[in-house]
Amino acid sequence: MNDITFAVLGTGGIGRRTLEVSQHEDELTPVAACDRHGTAIDFDGLDVEELLAATEGNIDSGPGDGDVATDGGAVADAPSGVKQHGESVGVVASEQATPSDDPIQAIIDHGDGIDAVLLALPNYEHDFIPRVADRFLEGGYSGVLIDVLKRSRVIEMLDERGEDFDDAGITFVCGAGATPGLLTGAATLAAQSFVEVTDVDIWWGVGLKSGYEDNRGTVREDIAHLPEYDIETARDLSEAELEAVIDDHDGVIEFEDMEHADDVLLERAGVCDAEDVSVGGILDVRRDEKPTTTTVSVTGRTFDGETATNTFELGDATSMEANVNGPALGYLKTGVRRNRADEYGVFGPAELMPRF
Amino acid sequence: MNDITFAVLGTGGIGRRTLEVSQHEDELTPVAACDRHGTAIDFDGLDVEELLAATEGNIDSGPGDGDVATDGGAVADAPSGVKQHGESVGVVASEQATPSDDPIQAIIDHGDGIDAVLLALPNYEHDFIPRVADRFLEGGYSGVLIDVLKRSRVIEMLDERGEDFDDAGITFVCGAGATPGLLTGAATLAAQSFVEVTDVDIWWGVGLKSGYEDNRGTVREDIAHLPEYDIETARDLSEAELEAVIDDHDGVIEFEDMEHADDVLLERAGVCDAEDVSVGGILDVRRDEKPTTTTVSVTGRTFDGETATNTFELGDATSMEANVNGPALGYLKTGVRRNRADEYGVFGPAELMPRF
Repeated sequence: MNDITFAVLGTGGIGRRTLEVSQHEDELTPVAACDRHGTAIDFDGLDVEELLAATEGNIDSGPGDGDVATDGGAVADAPSGVKQHGESVGVVASEQATPSDDPIQAIIDHGDGIDAVLLALPNYEHDFIPRVADRFLEGGYSGVLIDVLKRSRVIEMLDERGEDFDDAGITFVCGAGATPGLLTGAATLAAQSFVEVTDVDIWWGVGLKSGYEDNRGTVREDIAHLPEYDIETARDLSEAELEAVIDDHDGVIEFEDMEHADDVLLERAGVCDAEDVSVGGILDVRRDEKPTTTTVSVTGRTFDGETATNTFELGDATSMEANVNGPALGYLKTGVRRNRADEYGVFGPAELMPRF
Repeated sequence: MNDITFAVLGTGGIGRRTLEVSQHEDELTPVAACDRHGTAIDFDGLDVEELLAATEGNIDSGPGDGDVATDGGAVADAPSGVKQHGESVGVVASEQATPSDDPIQAIIDHGDGIDAVLLALPNYEHDFIPRVADRFLEGGYSGVLIDVLKRSRVIEMLDERGEDFDDAGITFVCGAGATPGLLTGAATLAAQSFVEVTDVDIWWGVGLKSGYEDNRGTVREDIAHLPEYDIETARDLSEAELEAVIDDHDGVIEFEDMEHADDVLLERAGVCDAEDVSVGGILDVRRDEKPTTTTVSVTGRTFDGETATNTFELGDATSMEANVNGPALGYLKTGVRRNRADEYGVFGPAELMPRF
C-alpha cells in the first residue's frame, strides 16, 4: 500500500501544480505526464522540476484555443529520460492523432505500471471527460482515474459508465478538487449533526493575480458560468476576448448559482436535494489576496428539533491551487486504496475521506 | 446495501440517543439493545419509543457506580416482543454473569442477523472496550463494532487486535463520536490544503442543563480528565461526590490538554504528530446554551509556502447528543459498507467519511 505511481493527463495549471504538490509526498511517484504535444514517461519517477520548467507557460488548452503560438515548452522538449514525440498531436482527444503520437494511448499502453491517472484537462465539451474515460475503458486500463471536473451534468454521464468501470476494475473518483471536492466533503461531514439538511451554501474566493497565467483554462471555465456565456461560447473565446471579459468586470467577477457538481454529488450521497445546494464566489485577477473567505455553510434540523448551521472556512492564505491540488492527490490516494480493495465504480467527494 | 441491522450495547445517554436518532434513518433497523439488566431483541425492529420509556433514567453506569437504586427502568422491563431476564446480571462484562444472563453473549448468539454493534459503554477501565471486543472475537462474531471511546491510549490496544479482527471478519470503527469522531474527520479534511500540518486545535462547548441526568456517565468521563482525577478515581466517585465536584466549579468546568484519541488517530492517519493536537473545552451544566462554540482549527503550510488556518465550527444550537450520535450512526453505516466490501480491521474517523 505504500507506493503509488500516477500519471497526469494535461500539463496546464492543474497538472503542473499537482506534480509540484506531489513532490512533498513520499508515497506518490509521478511516472507519466502528457499533453497535446507528447508524453513523458519514466517509471523511476519523473524529474518534476525539469518537467515544470519545460512546460512553463502551457495553457490548460482545449479544442477552441487559437493561440497555439503562446504555448510554452512542450512535454516533448523535456530533457533526457523522457520519450520524444516530434510531431504535434493536436488536441489530446483528437481522432486525427495516430497511435504512436497519441498521449492517452501511451499512458494506456503503460497502464500496468500506473496506479492512477489524474485527468487534469478542462471540460470544454460537456462530454469530454466521459469520452476520455471511454478511451481508457477501450484501452483495457485498470486502476484509478481521478477528475477535478466541476459541471453537475457530467456526473450522470460517469454513472452511466459505472458498470463498465466495475467490469474493467476502474475506480473513478470524480469532482476531486475544491468545489466539487474538499468543500463537498466538508458539507458531508457538517451534515452529520442533522437528521435533515435544508441548505448547503458553498461560497469561494480566489485571488489570481500571480496565478492568472497558469490558470487561464480555469478562468475560462468559470466565465462559462456567467449568464451571458455557456461552455461552447466560453471555449471559443480567444485569449484576447477572454481578457476583455475580465476587463469589463474590472478584474473582479462574482458568480452565483453556478452549475457545480457539489449539488448532484451531495444528492447522490443522500445528504440533501441538489436544488438545496448553491455554489457561488468571487474571482479577482487583480490581487493575490482572496476577495472573500471560502466558506461552506450547512443548515439543518437536529434530532432534538433545533435548527442550526455548521460552517467550514478555508484560511485566506490558502491558494486556489493548494485547495484544488492538495485534495486531488488526497482523493487519488484514497481512490487507490479503494481500488486495491477491489472497489470499482464511480465515487465522489461526499463518499470518500481523502488521505493526507 | 440498503438495510442495516444494528444492536446497542448500553442504554445510558449514548445508547438511548443513538436509538432515537436512528428513527430518522430508514436504512437502519435497531434489532437489539442490552444493558446490565438484560437484553431486548426483535429482528422485526425494536420499538424504540417503548424502549426509551422503559430505560428512562438509566445511568451510563460502570463498575464503580454505587447508586444502583437510582437506576431507572431496565431493558428487561420493556413490554411485549422483548426477551426478559429476571435476574440482574451485574455489570455487562462481569465474569459472574451466567451465559443465559449475559447480554453480550446474547448479542453474539444472534450475531448473524446483526450487521453492527454500537458499544455505547463508558470506558471506566483503560482496557474495558478492548476486553469487550475480545468477547466478540471469542464469540465468533463477524460484522461491525463501533465505539465512541475517547481516550487516546485505547487506540493502540485496538490496533493490537487488528489482525484478529481481520481474521474474524470484523470491521472495528473506533472514536466514532464527536471528539474523536466528527471533529477528527473535520481536521483530516481541513489538512488537505497543506503539505505540512503544524497544529490541530479541537475546542468543544457543551451546555448540559437538561441533558445532565441522561449523560452523567459522560460527565464522569470528562471529570476524569481534570488534573486532580484520573479514570479510576473518577469511576469511584459516588453520584453525590460527582455533583460536589461540579458544584466546586459552579457548574462550569474548563478542560485543557485532554487525552482524546483525536491525537493518535490523526497521527495514525499521517496528518500530523499526536503532540501537535490539543483537545479542550468547556462544560456548563447550569445552562443548555453552549458556553463556547465548538471549533476545529488546523494550521499548516501550503505547497506554495503560505501558513494558514482552516476552521470548522459547529452551530451553537447543535447539542452534544446530536454531534455524537449523528456521527456514530454515520460511521456505523460507513463501517458496514467497508465490512460488506470485505475490509476488516480497525478504522478511525481520520480514514472514513461517515454516511448521511
